[in-house]
Amino acid sequence: MKILITGIDGYSGWPLALHLLSRGHDVVGVDNFVTRRRVKEVGSWSATPIPSFPNRQKAVKEILGKELGFHRGDLTNYEFVHHVLDRERPDAIVHLAEQRSAPYSMIDVHHAVATQVENLTGTLHLLYAIRDTCPQAHLVKMGTMGEYGTPNTDIPEGFFEMEFHGRKDVVPFPRQAGSWYHWSKVFDSGDVQFASKIFGIAATDVMQGVIYGIRTPEITDRRLLTRFDFDETWGTALNRFIAQAVLGLPITPYGKGEQRRGFIALEDSMQSLRLAVENPAAAGEYRVFNQFDAAYSVNELAETTARVASEFGLAPTIEHPPDPRVEAEQHYYHPIHEHLPALGYQRTRNLEDVVREIFHDLVHYRRRLEAKRHVVQPTVDWRSVDSRPALVAREPPTPRAPPVGPDEPAFEGHTA
Amino acid sequence: MKILITGIDGYSGWPLALHLLSRGHDVVGVDNFVTRRRVKEVGSWSATPIPSFPNRQKAVKEILGKELGFHRGDLTNYEFVHHVLDRERPDAIVHLAEQRSAPYSMIDVHHAVATQVENLTGTLHLLYAIRDTCPQAHLVKMGTMGEYGTPNTDIPEGFFEMEFHGRKDVVPFPRQAGSWYHWSKVFDSGDVQFASKIFGIAATDVMQGVIYGIRTPEITDRRLLTRFDFDETWGTALNRFIAQAVLGLPITPYGKGEQRRGFIALEDSMQSLRLAVENPAAAGEYRVFNQFDAAYSVNELAETTARVASEFGLAPTIEHPPDPRVEAEQHYYHPIHEHLPALGYQRTRNLEDVVREIFHDLVHYRRRLEAKRHVVQPTVDWRSVDSRPALVAREPPTPRAPPVGPDEPAFEGHTA
Repeated sequence: MKILITGIDGYSGWPLALHLLSRGHDVVGVDNFVTRRRVKEVGSWSATPIPSFPNRQKAVKEILGKELGFHRGDLTNYEFVHHVLDRERPDAIVHLAEQRSAPYSMIDVHHAVATQVENLTGTLHLLYAIRDTCPQAHLVKMGTMGEYGTPNTDIPEGFFEMEFHGRKDVVPFPRQAGSWYHWSKVFDSGDVQFASKIFGIAATDVMQGVIYGIRTPEITDRRLLTRFDFDETWGTALNRFIAQAVLGLPITPYGKGEQRRGFIALEDSMQSLRLAVENPAAAGEYRVFNQFDAAYSVNELAETTARVASEFGLAPTIEHPPDPRVEAEQHYYHPIHEHLPALGYQRTRNLEDVVREIFHDLVHYRRRLEAKRHVVQPTVDWRSVDSRPALVAREPPTPRAPPVGPDEPAFEGHTA
Repeated sequence: MKILITGIDGYSGWPLALHLLSRGHDVVGVDNFVTRRRVKEVGSWSATPIPSFPNRQKAVKEILGKELGFHRGDLTNYEFVHHVLDRERPDAIVHLAEQRSAPYSMIDVHHAVATQVENLTGTLHLLYAIRDTCPQAHLVKMGTMGEYGTPNTDIPEGFFEMEFHGRKDVVPFPRQAGSWYHWSKVFDSGDVQFASKIFGIAATDVMQGVIYGIRTPEITDRRLLTRFDFDETWGTALNRFIAQAVLGLPITPYGKGEQRRGFIALEDSMQSLRLAVENPAAAGEYRVFNQFDAAYSVNELAETTARVASEFGLAPTIEHPPDPRVEAEQHYYHPIHEHLPALGYQRTRNLEDVVREIFHDLVHYRRRLEAKRHVVQPTVDWRSVDSRPALVAREPPTPRAPPVGPDEPAFEGHTA
């Protein structure tokens, strides 16, 4: 199959490209490199050094013996989106090119607006361009388990049979997101569902759990590594806990630490996306996959981190700063995930093994963590008037697509 | 109370200003006059001649003896929004300043994006500006009954008790909108609900039914009239039916005509908004009002129009062109509306009387209908690749806020 990946330069886009290439698919990517710029905006970088995109393409060629197509551009430019889809006519499009940080969206009004406007616009542009250039293409769109919030019931895969005043209907499960970013994903889900209905587009909406890990079987060389963000804005809680442990800082789960979320290893997320691509939705079908493997509390992440850290001669303490987010610290959490197992999904990795693997890599790149030590600890309060991370100037968000300048440095951040 | 109305120059914003002023409130308005420009974009105008805004202010002064404050500007400009709220510090904000046409949002990708981006951005800007300048202000936000779609159950007011796998929770009622415009309203509802939770804003989300009528008791002079749009893009089905009858054209309910929606007379919608304003939500409370009075099918609208038309010596036929929208033509429809009656809402007008009143006005302005005869009949198909009204050039949507030029003409369209 020919698969277009938007956001191919990102944390999951890159290993997905490697995985699909290694399975014999043709892969073409799109990116605007905004994640590189926005991580720099908050004064951080990836713990793993990330080659420039041309060097990533060269590494793919040399190590995997594969050609990787690429278009540099921005999904908020409709002419660009139409041009790429018209030229490539892919069988499937995996849409990962969105602003993906909840804390980033909460910095101030401009970051809130940029997050929602960019995410919505890119998705709408893709939907129309599919209709107009490749209406048979299957859209696999990245959503998040965070769209559902934490209701006091099980969470089905997208739809459920509702009963109200004695009558029944099958309807979308209510969404109750917890940040402007998470709401942007809810909105995208609405637009994709509607486009599927009116344009007949085949669509899989992936409610993605939190992904953890740096490695997949295809990452056999450091030039093929994917990003590992560990700062307050771009790093997940687990990433920050491991970075804290490596740096000798306390591990800081927010509040009581009983917040539970769905998680999945990077390798198993790639397996899931491949299964979605290789088993496409039908024309006009809109289906929802809850794509996670197990639910953990934040305390379980902290404790696993501390336990594995001790194997590396580290002895982190665990502290509980007040929760800056507006969320339930103790709640029921039981999402259902049956659609992917029905397609053959099987877990290949478990949390503790992957955490151990991350420690191996981070100990290797410890100097890159040390250089950005000041961005790891939390400073943002989502309720407060001025909630920006300490290092973000009072400026508009970094543009998605600045005028094309000189090439990126050979490795991200090497000129920082 | 001091009340800020965004979109004060629009169909419902203007009579709301008159109603609130006549009840002794202070009223300040905001508008960018985009409705005037966008109606012109599709080659139409209001059947009722609309004075320039300065002339509207003069008429208010002369006829009602009241001062009406005004700020010309655009809600997509955050500095403007912050400035206005900081200067006015209103007790309540009635937010009506959104792109309000479903057909306009369906014209093409650019109109879809403009609708969702503008509506979301304006609402987010208001939410942050309230937090930062007047956190006690009560936000009354205009949504639409169309957010719910037509589920096969009753429709509660925003929230309901759900049961799933033996557990219960009170959650937002699922939204299933039927156009990019309607989805933009769903998205706004999500953002307002979330802002209410994290910023503590008092919010009333109005699921507005379709409003009908031109007159309210405060409109005692033609200089105080509100708009009456009758073209395919900006006119409601009822407005178009009455215009068709006056012009001697067939009345054209789409498809089987069994589509049912909630309706309310303009005067009773103003009564409802005033009740919401005068009985504000509490700090941090997010409440939803289903603001309609009765449900009618499209056929009932067509038949009422034809019946009243005969009193004016007109004899329209009723034709059923294929439904260009993607919607159920026959469905269950039973929304609940209890919150406004609990605040004292009482119906003052009924459909047939208001239709008769509209005929009186339109017969008077018949020449203005005749001049735009070509824009009344439907041409848009929401499924097709090129679904723009015949008169809309293949151009981007009219900007909300062009550079401020010479004043508007004395009456809308007089230079067209």
